[in-house]
Amino acid sequence: MHLFYQPDFAQISALTDDEAFHAAKVLRLREGEAVRVTDGKGSWFDAVVQKSTPKRCDLTVIQRTVQTPRSYRIEIALAPTKNMDRIEWFVEKATEIGIDTVSFFYTRHSERRNMKLERLQKIAVSAMKQSLQAFLPELKEVGDFSNYVPGVSAAQKFIAHLPEDRTPPHLLKSAQPGQEYTVLIGPEGDFTEAEIRLTQQHGFEMATLGNTRLRTETAALVACQALHAVNYLP
Amino acid sequence: MHLFYQPDFAQISALTDDEAFHAAKVLRLREGEAVRVTDGKGSWFDAVVQKSTPKRCDLTVIQRTVQTPRSYRIEIALAPTKNMDRIEWFVEKATEIGIDTVSFFYTRHSERRNMKLERLQKIAVSAMKQSLQAFLPELKEVGDFSNYVPGVSAAQKFIAHLPEDRTPPHLLKSAQPGQEYTVLIGPEGDFTEAEIRLTQQHGFEMATLGNTRLRTETAALVACQALHAVNYLP
Repeated sequence: MHLFYQPDFAQISALTDDEAFHAAKVLRLREGEAVRVTDGKGSWFDAVVQKSTPKRCDLTVIQRTVQTPRSYRIEIALAPTKNMDRIEWFVEKATEIGIDTVSFFYTRHSERRNMKLERLQKIAVSAMKQSLQAFLPELKEVGDFSNYVPGVSAAQKFIAHLPEDRTPPHLLKSAQPGQEYTVLIGPEGDFTEAEIRLTQQHGFEMATLGNTRLRTETAALVACQALHAVNYLP
Repeated sequence: MHLFYQPDFAQISALTDDEAFHAAKVLRLREGEAVRVTDGKGSWFDAVVQKSTPKRCDLTVIQRTVQTPRSYRIEIALAPTKNMDRIEWFVEKATEIGIDTVSFFYTRHSERRNMKLERLQKIAVSAMKQSLQAFLPELKEVGDFSNYVPGVSAAQKFIAHLPEDRTPPHLLKSAQPGQEYTVLIGPEGDFTEAEIRLTQQHGFEMATLGNTRLRTETAALVACQALHAVNYLP
């Protein structure tokens, strides 16, 4: 079964842009063929091709299935790495295991100060389809760390950080099930002391992610999966 | 501090081969410089360069630190993917978060029937150093699935599989802390029914890894991290 992503499908019952082109030119879909479309907002549509052109593929909906959203929401906010490959795999893997929001911020030690979200967006769409999910994570650039931190409104806010004088509890132990979470993951050069202080002023709890030193993108994925684990376990 | 890996360091107090070459030609280490060496078997050696040539770098050991091994052991056994990049990132990430053994087997639906372990070995060494660990995971090709399965001796043996008629418990719920674990991860085309039957005859428990369909290498990493979670939580 061919899978498509069309964010406004509930309104237009058609594929447009790249998805219409792919349907017409690559898959050469004909009238009457069955396809599946998700709007990335929780719905799957079983549908049949009415008319396919490279610009628009009109579909007749047979059935709409609504996927139940998770009872918790995960935002991972991180400093993008210099090497975009590492961020790309994080977005792919986090989408596969399930994530709601990926936010990119810039810190004092950030190795990268700009992001092209378009390619990451495509990777997320592809991973969403691959893992048979109907929710597309939101990817966003949130700018300067110092502007971003005060506005985080999640019920549980964490920063992955190991201070010199003590070991904070593992994220698996601090996170409570069924919450909205935000976890901050620093750049390879770590957060500065001023950045840490700012998070403490805004109610972020320090958390560890294990006994080994992790790369930025590994820490981000480990945090995401730890939050799923907290919710599977009770 | 420069980090090196020398498996027989306890015996020879020297770097050889690539590590000696790297020390002499790339880093141009001189007499008296401080370095750190791990044997990949749990020891760190703080040492000082005595004499460095591209073939051998003799060191004087100042101090040996022994890392306590984990109270549990993780083996992930998987069918290698067609695309080696995916296996390479799995080995890198699993080494970073901690794994004891990665075994590669061949099944009926395997997309790849041969493995070059040399490059994976280098990736594991680099990830071990990067994450400041003194244990190098064992990477091995274990051949045909049907020959490998009967010999698995771990206390807890799992197969990541979702049968059509029921949903087995999540690995997080079935795994007990402090055990030796083996988890089997199938190829993209999944295990055959005969392969599943064989695992059932040899005491493997079926386990799920979440609510989404995961790629082989993602499932392998999720399984590895779930086993860590089981051991962090109690």
